[in-house]
Parts: sequence; C-alpha cells; structure tokens
Amino acid sequence: MPELRKDPVLGRWVIIATERAKRPSDFEVTREQSESASCVFCEGRESETPPEVYAVRREGTGTDGPGWDVRVIPNKYPALETTGELNREGVGLCDMANGIGVHEVIVETPDHHRAMADLSVAHIAEVMRTYRQRIIDLQEDRRLKYVLIFKNQGRSAGASLQHAHSQLIATPITPKRVKEKLDGAKRYFDYKHRCVFCDYIKQETELFGERLVAETAHFVSLSPFAARFPFETWILPKRHMLDFALIEDDEAADLGQILKLVLLKLREALNDPPFNYVVHMAPYRRPRGGYWTTIEEDYHWHVELIPRLTQVAGFEWGSGFYINPTAPEVAAETLRNTQV
Amino acid sequence: MPELRKDPVLGRWVIIATERAKRPSDFEVTREQSESASCVFCEGRESETPPEVYAVRREGTGTDGPGWDVRVIPNKYPALETTGELNREGVGLCDMANGIGVHEVIVETPDHHRAMADLSVAHIAEVMRTYRQRIIDLQEDRRLKYVLIFKNQGRSAGASLQHAHSQLIATPITPKRVKEKLDGAKRYFDYKHRCVFCDYIKQETELFGERLVAETAHFVSLSPFAARFPFETWILPKRHMLDFALIEDDEAADLGQILKLVLLKLREALNDPPFNYVVHMAPYRRPRGGYWTTIEEDYHWHVELIPRLTQVAGFEWGSGFYINPTAPEVAAETLRNTQV
Repeated sequence: MPELRKDPVLGRWVIIATERAKRPSDFEVTREQSESASCVFCEGRESETPPEVYAVRREGTGTDGPGWDVRVIPNKYPALETTGELNREGVGLCDMANGIGVHEVIVETPDHHRAMADLSVAHIAEVMRTYRQRIIDLQEDRRLKYVLIFKNQGRSAGASLQHAHSQLIATPITPKRVKEKLDGAKRYFDYKHRCVFCDYIKQETELFGERLVAETAHFVSLSPFAARFPFETWILPKRHMLDFALIEDDEAADLGQILKLVLLKLREALNDPPFNYVVHMAPYRRPRGGYWTTIEEDYHWHVELIPRLTQVAGFEWGSGFYINPTAPEVAAETLRNTQV
Repeated sequence: MPELRKDPVLGRWVIIATERAKRPSDFEVTREQSESASCVFCEGRESETPPEVYAVRREGTGTDGPGWDVRVIPNKYPALETTGELNREGVGLCDMANGIGVHEVIVETPDHHRAMADLSVAHIAEVMRTYRQRIIDLQEDRRLKYVLIFKNQGRSAGASLQHAHSQLIATPITPKRVKEKLDGAKRYFDYKHRCVFCDYIKQETELFGERLVAETAHFVSLSPFAARFPFETWILPKRHMLDFALIEDDEAADLGQILKLVLLKLREALNDPPFNYVVHMAPYRRPRGGYWTTIEEDYHWHVELIPRLTQVAGFEWGSGFYINPTAPEVAAETLRNTQV
C-alpha cells in the first residue's frame, strides 16, 4: 500500500509509492519507449491490460475487446490504491495516511502511431467527453476530494509509453497547488466580487491582445502574463465554469478544436517538443475535509500546457521562483504566426 | 532589463529574462558542456570573466590574476541586473517590477577536472565561508530581501558549464517557497513555542534513526520524512541558527566534512548522478516589504540536496503533489551502508 506523507513545515503532501519501489541501480537504466509490437494499449491487446472501467465503443463491440475509440483502464502500476478506508496517523511530529485513491489511464486512440495532435477534432472531443465522464463517475466515491487529469507526451516529459494516452489521479486530499489557486481566486473574489479568470480573459482579449494565441467560439488560448516556462500556454473557457464536468457537448467539440490547433502550432514552431498538460478545476464539494465552502463564483477551470524546453535547476526548486528566457508576448506572437 | 512578473492568482513571481531571450530554434540545440580548453573558469583565464567581486587568494597574488582557491564573479548572463531602483507597476490586473538583483558565480576550484566531492574538506569549508562572506556583504544593499545559494552539477541538473561552481541570486522579493517555509515554521512556533526543525532533528536522531544518513559534531544529514524525490537528502545544523551567515569557522569546517561525505556516498550509490542543492535560510531582516518580523526563533537554515534521477511530469507540475518511488528509509539505509 502506498503512503501519503506530509511535510511538517510546508504542509506539502507526497506519495511514497512503495509498490513501485526502485533500487539505486534502477535509475541507471534508460527506458526505451514501447514499440508497437509490445504495446498493450494497442487494439487487439485488451486482454493484457486490467479490465476497462469505461470506453467509447462502436456498436456491437464488447467490453475488453477491440472496437473502441477511447478506452479507460486502471494504471497497472498505480501511485495510489483503490481499496480501503483513509486512515490518518501521526509519526512523531509528522503526519501520514495510507495511499487511497484512483489512478487511471485514458488511452486516446487504438492507433499506436497517432499522437493527440493527429486525431480528428471530433476524436479529441471524444477524449474530452471521456474526461468529463470519469470526473462525474468518480464523484460518487466519497473518499475522493480531487481529480487531476494530465497528459505527458515524450520521454523527457515523463511518458514511459509512446502510445497516446492521458492519466487521471484522484486523491483523498486537495493538492497544494490547487489549494493555493483556490485561495488566490477567492481572495480576488472577496475583494472585487468578480472572478479573476473572467477578468483576466477580458483583459487579454479586449485590452491587450499581445499574449493571445488562438480563440474559438467558447475558448481562448494565451501565453500567461507571468509564464514560468518558454511557450507555456493556457486554454480557458470563456464561460465561467467551476468544473470541467460542467462542459456541454458543443463546448467539448470546441475544446477539441482549440486543443488540436494549439498542439499543431507547438509541434510546428518548436519541432515536436515533449510536453505536459494538466486540467485545473475545483475540488469535489464535500461536506468535510475538502473545500466544502467552494462556491460557483470562486474558480474557473483551465488547461495549463507546458512544452519541456528547458531544464528546471536548483534556483527554481529552491525558491519556487522561475526564470523564463522567453517573454510571453514573443511566444504568443510566434504561435499566432505559425501556420498549421 | 529583465522583468519580474506576478501571477495574479497564485501570487508567484517569475523572472522574464529578456536579456537571455531565446528564439524557438535555440531550444533545439543540445549544448555541450565546456571542455577545459575553452573554460573561462580555469586558472589563468581570469581576464576573460567579469572582474571578481571576492576571492580566497594565496598571499602575494593580485585581483583577477591566478593564485586563488575560490573566486566569485558576476554571472555573464545574469537573470537579474544590479543597477537601478526597484520600480513596481500594474499591468491591468497583473503586477510587475523591473528585474533588480544580483547574480553571481562562485567558482569552487581553479582545477577544471575536480568536482566538489573531490576537493579536500578544508577546501569545501573555504567555499562555505565564501558563501557566508557574500551573504554578509550583500546585506548592505537595502534593495535586496533574499539570497539564494544553489549548485547545479551535471547537464540534466541544469549546469551549462562543467567546471565546479555554485551560484547566488539575490532578489528584491522573498521567494514563494521560502515564505511558505517561514510561515510553516512560524505556525509551529506559535503553537508549540519550539523550533520545528530543532524538534525534527531531535526526533530523527533520538527517536527513530531510520532516516539518518550521517552525523558530525555540528551537523546531521537525513532523508526527509516526506521526501519529494528518490534520495533527496537534507543537511541541517544541530545548533538553532536562523541564517547561514551565523556559522562559525569550526562549523564551516564541519559542514565541509559532512557535505563531502554525503556527496561521495551519493556518487558511489547512484553512479555519479546529476544533482542540485539549495541553501534555505531566512530573508534579510528589513524594516519594510520583507519579513521584518522574522525573529531568531522562527527559522533554522538547512541544505536541500536533490539527485536528479526521475523526470518530473504533468501530475507533479499540476498539483504540487509529488510521487516518490523510493521510501526515504530505504534511501537512508542505502546511503548509510555505502562505504566511501
């Protein structure tokens, strides 16, 4: 069973994933990405993965067989485990809990050779609706406080498998960075009685425009004013929405369109860089232990996308203070002018 | 002039280092580490660097000539600039300031081929006393709130030059992670009227022992209970000290001893991994704008050392929630049993 442990000074929780335990010599191996021949995410290999928890299937196909477009399975090497109750205990002045949670893989396509950017807009929209469905389904599990959806593409972005996939980790604790964002948005709302993200979108689209990357009917993509990384790019819904689970089908289709556009622009401008994206949304509203006071006005979900172009070094780890060698205005202009 | 910019939600400052501006094609180049033949940190090349601001020199040698053991020079490509006053301004709902600060390189040895772990204990102690001296000297500059000392060794840890060196960045703003640590330590002190680090050292050395890596007369090295990374290792002074600048000469000698021991153990156990370390100490006490209320009891400086063994991926960036595949107890036992 993995463990959750809390730093007594920072209050930062970590997952000690003992089930994935590594010996010193394991770190020396340069893992190659899977070839198609050995890839269990490919169509026809469904029996070699844990049983699917959800799939977008063509009519007449059966669970754990071929015939799907998007398929969700439990991670074979989960960072958290699904069975048991959350038990907290003290260890001297430190705190820990058992590692309860959910860790799933969203296989985005049956085709080993297509990256997300190669999928059709309609197919990417199907992936987005799959995210929505899993967020809604997992809400029933009262132990869970938060769902983080993320994607690693490319080995130096942390992807150990090449086949296009996203991941979902649901935790019994609201992660630190999410709490900080909620607190920041709430502070702004308390002062202004407006959503900071709504104001920010208005400012960037109507007042400035120089950090704008792309715009569709329902979404806007921009380089954030205080970007930590070169070509860091956000995608935000124009409509105020607390939760990713609230997107309508037409919005999911539109999100597929802007996501494909941004991914193609990044690929073209930066020579197919490895990247991560994360979906930042509000925690589940629970009566206790979570952010049960979170209300509709407090937050506004969005996607943070980070191409992995530079090494994060000692200064950044030590200070939380990032040095970005590319002005967001230059990154946005480059992406705006990149034809795809 | 670089810019400081603040995220309107998180309150996180970043440095937009426009002087180091990169075009998209620059990210594709894999920079090789400097060979000795072209290294300006080597003895005899002093005229090719900016003039030294401090050096530990043998008697009879002159400024910016050979004959030094440790040499401090301004960074040729600084993230922050030294001249001017700090001016803050608003940009819509965002905040920025001009990038005032100090960025220096501490060249640890004239010899291109020796890593810090290869230097004598007395020589490493000289490097530590150099850190102390620069912290004391820079305190005179009233614009500066914080000094962060850090070291990147190895290309994948962010070092662009191979020649052994540390860096120092002094900022007009207390970095976010430091503020969080100060706040955490203060909360503990307000509740317990004891220093959380003193209590933690006592717990780890007297009560548990299983996360202990090494111990000398004045210092203790341990794997932190909630380590974010495999083999993350801290070094803490046993004596309660707010500031690195307060170490006595015998403590600096002792720090040289434990630092060399830990570096040799990591090199032996993990096949010479790239690593970062950072010195976390209290900000300068200033009457305004800084943590002027910081008092003697609130904080306890320490060194955080992180071997770079795993990739940080989307989950970690998105959540601030780290997954560590090596239990700290296993890492500590491995290092305790590693003979050097």
